[in-house]
Amino acid sequence: MAVPATGSTNIVLRLEMDKETSTFGRIATAIGEAGGDIVAVDVSGTSKTSTIRDVTVNITDTQRKELIVSVLNKSPGVKVLQVSDQTFLMHLGGKIEVTPKMTIKTRDDLSRVYTPGVANICMAIHESPKRAHSLTIKRNTIAVVSDGTAVLGLGNIGPLAAMPVMEGKAMLFKQLAGVDAFPICLDTQDTEEIIATIKRIAPTFGGINLEDISSPRCFEIERRLIEELDIPVFHDDQHGTAVVLLAGLINAVKLADKQLADCKVVLCGVGAAGIACTKILLAAGVRNIIGVDRDGALVAGNSYEHEAWSWYAEHTNPNREQGKLSEVIAGADIFIGVSGPGVLKADDVRKMAKDAIVFAMANPTPEITPEEAEGLVRVIATGRSDYPNQINNVLCFPGLFRGVLDCRASRVTEEMKLAAAHAIAAVVTEDELNEYYIIPSIFNPNVADRVKEAVIEAAYASGVARRRERKL
Amino acid sequence: MAVPATGSTNIVLRLEMDKETSTFGRIATAIGEAGGDIVAVDVSGTSKTSTIRDVTVNITDTQRKELIVSVLNKSPGVKVLQVSDQTFLMHLGGKIEVTPKMTIKTRDDLSRVYTPGVANICMAIHESPKRAHSLTIKRNTIAVVSDGTAVLGLGNIGPLAAMPVMEGKAMLFKQLAGVDAFPICLDTQDTEEIIATIKRIAPTFGGINLEDISSPRCFEIERRLIEELDIPVFHDDQHGTAVVLLAGLINAVKLADKQLADCKVVLCGVGAAGIACTKILLAAGVRNIIGVDRDGALVAGNSYEHEAWSWYAEHTNPNREQGKLSEVIAGADIFIGVSGPGVLKADDVRKMAKDAIVFAMANPTPEITPEEAEGLVRVIATGRSDYPNQINNVLCFPGLFRGVLDCRASRVTEEMKLAAAHAIAAVVTEDELNEYYIIPSIFNPNVADRVKEAVIEAAYASGVARRRERKL
Repeated sequence: MAVPATGSTNIVLRLEMDKETSTFGRIATAIGEAGGDIVAVDVSGTSKTSTIRDVTVNITDTQRKELIVSVLNKSPGVKVLQVSDQTFLMHLGGKIEVTPKMTIKTRDDLSRVYTPGVANICMAIHESPKRAHSLTIKRNTIAVVSDGTAVLGLGNIGPLAAMPVMEGKAMLFKQLAGVDAFPICLDTQDTEEIIATIKRIAPTFGGINLEDISSPRCFEIERRLIEELDIPVFHDDQHGTAVVLLAGLINAVKLADKQLADCKVVLCGVGAAGIACTKILLAAGVRNIIGVDRDGALVAGNSYEHEAWSWYAEHTNPNREQGKLSEVIAGADIFIGVSGPGVLKADDVRKMAKDAIVFAMANPTPEITPEEAEGLVRVIATGRSDYPNQINNVLCFPGLFRGVLDCRASRVTEEMKLAAAHAIAAVVTEDELNEYYIIPSIFNPNVADRVKEAVIEAAYASGVARRRERKL
Repeated sequence: MAVPATGSTNIVLRLEMDKETSTFGRIATAIGEAGGDIVAVDVSGTSKTSTIRDVTVNITDTQRKELIVSVLNKSPGVKVLQVSDQTFLMHLGGKIEVTPKMTIKTRDDLSRVYTPGVANICMAIHESPKRAHSLTIKRNTIAVVSDGTAVLGLGNIGPLAAMPVMEGKAMLFKQLAGVDAFPICLDTQDTEEIIATIKRIAPTFGGINLEDISSPRCFEIERRLIEELDIPVFHDDQHGTAVVLLAGLINAVKLADKQLADCKVVLCGVGAAGIACTKILLAAGVRNIIGVDRDGALVAGNSYEHEAWSWYAEHTNPNREQGKLSEVIAGADIFIGVSGPGVLKADDVRKMAKDAIVFAMANPTPEITPEEAEGLVRVIATGRSDYPNQINNVLCFPGLFRGVLDCRASRVTEEMKLAAAHAIAAVVTEDELNEYYIIPSIFNPNVADRVKEAVIEAAYASGVARRRERKL
């Protein structure tokens, strides 16, 4: 998953230069000839015999990096100690911090936020534990919890390596919805241990966002935590994806002038996200949805190794269609891909109904590219930011948790997810709606607020909101 | 533990006022007659029949609060919905937040801090896990962990009620030493579960500050975590108190022109803090220290119910002195109290050696007040902010963890604690040192930095610092 350099980028080379045998002029020449442009030079240390310099170099192409390093390493008296690119530099020391909301200026301040005054707050909570929802960070803080087993497309890379993703997510929570999110990466991959650990740290938090936990453990972990905790637990890889998918489909079918309830839907990739997408579509009224995995369509009556697949077969595919993707795709109105690159062929798309809708969400390479689908479909959406119609969870999770915290919801109901999807879809007005704009941009400032409002309303309607409604 | 109002304070009364039967003029008069001074009025809601107002009232005495509330509740058409004082208001929504270090302004920013660019950072850590110490918040973040069993002097009030203390501590960590500290309050009081939980959440953190965990479980929890984790684990109630006590004693004995090694020390209250104080004094060269608990002096050869007491008896009291505090105190140079109010009588102090030093650290009421000890001692220190010579852990923990994180220490050694104590003591110069100024103020801006430097030096000397030293 190398990141292509889009335009120019800066790298920082930390060089140890021998004072006798090297000159900066020679180094500058070498960097220039290798295609780099020196932007800044900082001396970061010096001894009797050597100098350490941090040289910032602009390059237009990431391949230049290796070339520059190899040229410098061949220069007499020069040692490249470290090479950092901008992405690395942005991660130095981590991406989030824990900051006090006020400065303790005087002894009087201190006696309020800490001993002895804080004892009054402690005792008030001790007398009535629900006060923790207003008098502590539980009011506005969630945990982003991962065990590092299914991180992005990278697989089981463990808790330490998962941290940068969880920190990035915490940044988005705060920036987009003012939610304080703290990453907790767990040094265990055991289902029971994960459940027990999250339950024990729960007093600090007002909600739990599960993230990048592999299937099928993620189902059991989420189900049990929802049952056993009194704060909402939400596995974003499942439900965030489902909510945003539904938002996109709501708008896509408008363009095709179809009703979701009448559509034949083929979903490819019956994993955690695929199952969640299916469930939300069923809740939204879809009747004919067919799940396809490696061995073809899932059909009721067959026996499957995973319990989740048996459940799936029983609740979908009412006409018991059998066969491979290329067979069951015939006549489908909607294709949903949460599988892998290139799974959907142009010939498959040709078999779909008129005004076909394709959501090819595999990352980073979709089931079919928009270029290949061009002319064959009415609408295509992907998970990528470099094509129109990006299906991105970030449209859902900040606003959803904002709403959940604001109304002190005890859980996230199906109604709340549906409400979030409709709110996201509604940000795109009838005037704006077109084949290349079915879903708002992740930077659209209205999305989180709209999702919040919808989620709160649905939470009160579902009876899970625990904050007294202020209607005066 | 009611907090005495020192001078005036504001309270906020949320009043529901019936539009027909109540007038604000009558309410204002009632508040004024009850001794309150209206500072501000905000209308926070209104309906056809009633108005909700938040009335901020200045009072000079907390007892006025109850009087005002009772007068208002008797007024026709008025209901007091809520009363908040300034301490409560400062706690609304919690005292800390989780903030991004940079704003994500463009899609390009997003692709660096989140997908897809973040994958490069994840893989770099996956290849070399120690990089987590520089590329994630592990670099600068510790957990402040409590099970809520021994919170301040309040006892076992549970995890939710413990949160405000841990949040206050997190504020101090950041403000005084730039350390990101996040509170984790555990919904278990079982030793093994606490150990397992902390081990499993450890990947996120560069250190663990244990807080307000009751004795004797705190010993086992700390010992096991130190053994089983590769990041420092520090029970502040034990070692923070010990470090600051030693700092104070180092300066106090200078005034008395004595050597610590020659002093007879009597310590009252052989709990977690008392044992830690004893250990650091032994490490600092003290030879004759006698521990006293409810049944009198601990003496080698006796049998005790706690393992910790047997250990204590074997390693202290070389002359096997027996008897109650009032007996063994005879001839003592130093009294250390980590017990309860009024335990040390003036008559006991009269039996001490010339230039007696008394550290009466019980909170909020010391073993003997400075007023009672006046004229009988050379130096008296307490845990209170309203007397000179306050022994407060906040002099130690921010700088200590700052140092530990900066040199990437794997643990906190005895040498590092001793170094911290000497650094705190040295902030008070020979010129400044006097009977009423043996320890710096908690607001002294030099303390954390001096402690940090000393701790780092000691960590390298102890061989526990894992960051390459930059000496050029």
